[in-house]
Amino acid sequence: MNKIEYNPIGIIRTPFKETKGMPIQSAFSKAAGKVILSKEFLNAIKGLKGFSHLILIYHFHNAKKQAQIVKPFLSEQELGIFAVRAPNRPNSIGISIVRLIDIIVQKNSIELIINGVDMLDQTPLLDIKPYMKDYDSVPDAKCGWYDVREIKTAVADDRFSKV
Amino acid sequence: MNKIEYNPIGIIRTPFKETKGMPIQSAFSKAAGKVILSKEFLNAIKGLKGFSHLILIYHFHNAKKQAQIVKPFLSEQELGIFAVRAPNRPNSIGISIVRLIDIIVQKNSIELIINGVDMLDQTPLLDIKPYMKDYDSVPDAKCGWYDVREIKTAVADDRFSKV
Repeated sequence: MNKIEYNPIGIIRTPFKETKGMPIQSAFSKAAGKVILSKEFLNAIKGLKGFSHLILIYHFHNAKKQAQIVKPFLSEQELGIFAVRAPNRPNSIGISIVRLIDIIVQKNSIELIINGVDMLDQTPLLDIKPYMKDYDSVPDAKCGWYDVREIKTAVADDRFSKV
Repeated sequence: MNKIEYNPIGIIRTPFKETKGMPIQSAFSKAAGKVILSKEFLNAIKGLKGFSHLILIYHFHNAKKQAQIVKPFLSEQELGIFAVRAPNRPNSIGISIVRLIDIIVQKNSIELIINGVDMLDQTPLLDIKPYMKDYDSVPDAKCGWYDVREIKTAVADDRFSKV
């Protein structure tokens, strides 16, 4: 199959300069951050402000690649990369659901003020989608190894990162 | 910023050969489909079977590109592309949450039998993530224009597709 090429639409600013100590999921993060978009996208955000949550799709720019089996932060088991959310995936695509706090239009950029960031500072952003509870919320989903895990909380270390 | 390049990990088989008449979201679809992965990913799916739902991240291979303002299927308003889920985005990345029914290991491939497909047949797949209710479910999210829409159900037409 052909390669697929994307151009980042912006970057995500967060307090996290390194993976070590970072929250492992946005649901476990209270950290504030910003999405910085080019001013060219002013029309593209029309209607976004009414949404409380956004889905950010981004590139794990500091991930090691291509692992098939990993031990995630929340398990002592070795698991397949498609059964976990670790960054060192065949394609280094991440998603996080963050809370949208405000939108500030600056002179040369647009800033989306967000909360619940769990990614490295300067992460290249590929897409923003509105979180739609009717499509995206499955509160009774069964979650395999996660539902029976022994490790209940964790922060990241550098096991999945380029050194 | 640098371009980012991904290689599809597989394809999604669905009953939909054209956009017209397709369900517009997996939550509105009862259609059965399959993810076809290369046998090389056998280790990468270890632990996946315990999950009831998967997040599929894929390339909208038949989308027109680069719209900033669109009229989505569920609104008469013109809205920004980042405030809707239409495919003709700056980066043509789609996500769908589908139900995982079964995993069948064939001689030369792996088939994930899924339900609730809302994408075209032969869609290139970029990533599979387990749906984690603790991270991904926000049942009380506010959804802006969607919460007050007048159009309650719709199927797709070809407004966002290459002809």
